[in-house]
Amino acid sequence: MSTTVVSVAIAYHSGYGHTTRMAESVEEGVRSVAGATAGTVRLDDLTEEDWARLDAADAIVFGSPTYMGSASPVFHAFAAASSERWYGQRWKDKVAAGFTTSGSPSGDKLNTLQYFTVFAAQHGMHWVNLDLLPGDTENDPNRLGGWLGAMGRCPVDQGPESMPKGDLLTAAHLGRRVAGHARLLRTARTLATA
Amino acid sequence: MSTTVVSVAIAYHSGYGHTTRMAESVEEGVRSVAGATAGTVRLDDLTEEDWARLDAADAIVFGSPTYMGSASPVFHAFAAASSERWYGQRWKDKVAAGFTTSGSPSGDKLNTLQYFTVFAAQHGMHWVNLDLLPGDTENDPNRLGGWLGAMGRCPVDQGPESMPKGDLLTAAHLGRRVAGHARLLRTARTLATA
Amino acid sequence: MSTTVVSVAIAYHSGYGHTTRMAESVEEGVRSVAGATAGTVRLDDLTEEDWARLDAADAIVFGSPTYMGSASPVFHAFAAASSERWYGQRWKDKVAAGFTTSGSPSGDKLNTLQYFTVFAAQHGMHWVNLDLLPGDTENDPNRLGGWLGAMGRCPVDQGPESMPKGDLLTAAHLGRRVAGHARLLRTARTLATA
Amino acid sequence: MSTTVVSVAIAYHSGYGHTTRMAESVEEGVRSVAGATAGTVRLDDLTEEDWARLDAADAIVFGSPTYMGSASPVFHAFAAASSERWYGQRWKDKVAAGFTTSGSPSGDKLNTLQYFTVFAAQHGMHWVNLDLLPGDTENDPNRLGGWLGAMGRCPVDQGPESMPKGDLLTAAHLGRRVAGHARLLRTARTLATA
Repeated sequence: MSTTVVSVAIAYHSGYGHTTRMAESVEEGVRSVAGATAGTVRLDDLTEEDWARLDAADAIVFGSPTYMGSASPVFHAFAAASSERWYGQRWKDKVAAGFTTSGSPSGDKLNTLQYFTVFAAQHGMHWVNLDLLPGDTENDPNRLGGWLGAMGRCPVDQGPESMPKGDLLTAAHLGRRVAGHARLLRTARTLATA
Repeated sequence: MSTTVVSVAIAYHSGYGHTTRMAESVEEGVRSVAGATAGTVRLDDLTEEDWARLDAADAIVFGSPTYMGSASPVFHAFAAASSERWYGQRWKDKVAAGFTTSGSPSGDKLNTLQYFTVFAAQHGMHWVNLDLLPGDTENDPNRLGGWLGAMGRCPVDQGPESMPKGDLLTAAHLGRRVAGHARLLRTARTLATA
Repeated sequence: MSTTVVSVAIAYHSGYGHTTRMAESVEEGVRSVAGATAGTVRLDDLTEEDWARLDAADAIVFGSPTYMGSASPVFHAFAAASSERWYGQRWKDKVAAGFTTSGSPSGDKLNTLQYFTVFAAQHGMHWVNLDLLPGDTENDPNRLGGWLGAMGRCPVDQGPESMPKGDLLTAAHLGRRVAGHARLLRTARTLATA
Repeated sequence: MSTTVVSVAIAYHSGYGHTTRMAESVEEGVRSVAGATAGTVRLDDLTEEDWARLDAADAIVFGSPTYMGSASPVFHAFAAASSERWYGQRWKDKVAAGFTTSGSPSGDKLNTLQYFTVFAAQHGMHWVNLDLLPGDTENDPNRLGGWLGAMGRCPVDQGPESMPKGDLLTAAHLGRRVAGHARLLRTARTLATA
């Protein structure tokens, strides 16, 4: 059997580059899966072509910093604009997942991930969670202890280059998991309609 | 003792007028309290004067429609812009409360109210909840069964004039409760510093 | 190709029978899918055999009334006891979904569903959401407007026989969707290991 | 004016002692406020006398470990049992706040605090948030970055004696803040009815 090709879009906004680091790690994770292609979509400059890529993707991974307890205004503008897709349930049955960053270990990041799940639920998407026990050190995946998605934490006075290795590993793991899951579903759907 | 004067700002965004109806009811509720003044602040057109009014208020009631599972992008832009106040904890100890509307009875409105509480918490504000048992009919306060704030529901194909009486009563009750609570705190603080 | 057989366990607690009505509808929905078997697990009387059934299931649908803003104590006792499975990630990659009931239209049911998603996420399960636009009448699926799972509402002074048709249709739809999704995944996994 | 006397009850459950450490710090914080008395109520062994103390308190601070994404079953049993108070709105207008502990920095603790706010909202209580900017080190208050309440984190293989100083300072600060706020309200109410 030839390898199924699935596409994963990483739809994100980054304020100062930390979330971009996470997005890049998600992308690497996706690409490590045979038959999976990855592409990032910057939400602060959405083109019609970007929307078309999202519409065509097997999976969308949502990413945003956590600002004042939720995703950034750029993300929320994108979410509201997606209501057009919602009316027609055009993203129904796509795979979805999410990641977020903030300056504190907890930092209300969970509220952003919860919002992502509510948002994806409205679209009828299938939410992929992390299958990682909590880590111990800054170098361990899931060192912050989150499961609805990948959390990254970097002190506010440090640049994106300081994102802890553990958080990037978490993001890469999420990308891998999403791609593998999307590939599984694509295989089965292709078979079902063969 | 002369009546303490407290000011309540209603900071809201409305897409099609339903949330404006709720805001007006909150305002009426505030005004029914002796010594309380109310003023609305439209978040889609924030001026420096508006920010000054928010800074000076004893209480801020946040309002927004629920779009795709959270507050509107206009509200989130306001929230992110308020981070400047957050750094200096300038809104600390103000009273806070919230209301939201959507087209379905549940409609993920609770997620918007939960977000409001997380947002107000970051500002160190004091959150006022509803003290209303659930209502039975469209004319009863709290007919939808919400407690973190006031919920309004109007079918999407009906205009603001169709907002059920019960939901407007809920909003008015919240305004009254916020104003009474803010007045109580103001009285005590005035006394403490006398 | 012979029909894939998948098993869906409905793990629920019901206080007064309303949630049982929803569970039965979920069960009917599952059974309407070719190759899917359904079984209910009453959480207030969990046996070792029940745990074994949950361990063996392809999908688990969680159900509980919403009491004071969350799932019932019986459900939470079950959830805490499942931590043994969590350590070994034994439920990882199972499909998960949820439903809840309460006496008000909104009634903080969303908080229970959000809790279910956080709980399922810790187990590394895949969360299935509803793909239903909001309904209009008591007879329509998703008439309450929820997407993280199926919501049922029945006034507190009415018995389980009064559960609105729309809510039972929502539950049946969820069961069907979970079974179809689980079958798809099982098909693909069987193929992948063939 | 003589000092107003207010009572703060700390209603909590602890599994292995970490949450007890936090409760003790909350208690110390309360006691540092002139005119405030503190008492703990262990939720795993609730007596009628305990319920009477809760009924009589000006403020109740809720505490629980976070197990599988929410408060412990002991806490949820208490919450469900409190529905009797809810019907009569007997805890209405009391001050409320919360704290939780878990083994990871984020560890879904926010979901437990969000649940506490929803629970307190149903009771019509007034929720007190933290007024603390995030800390930097293990010795700083609010080092984890939480605002809805006090978060404590201790690795699962370490005993209660290892609870970081910063988390205990956060808990003490919360106790102080709750007591001060409750005293302010009591002063004003006493005056209003004088």
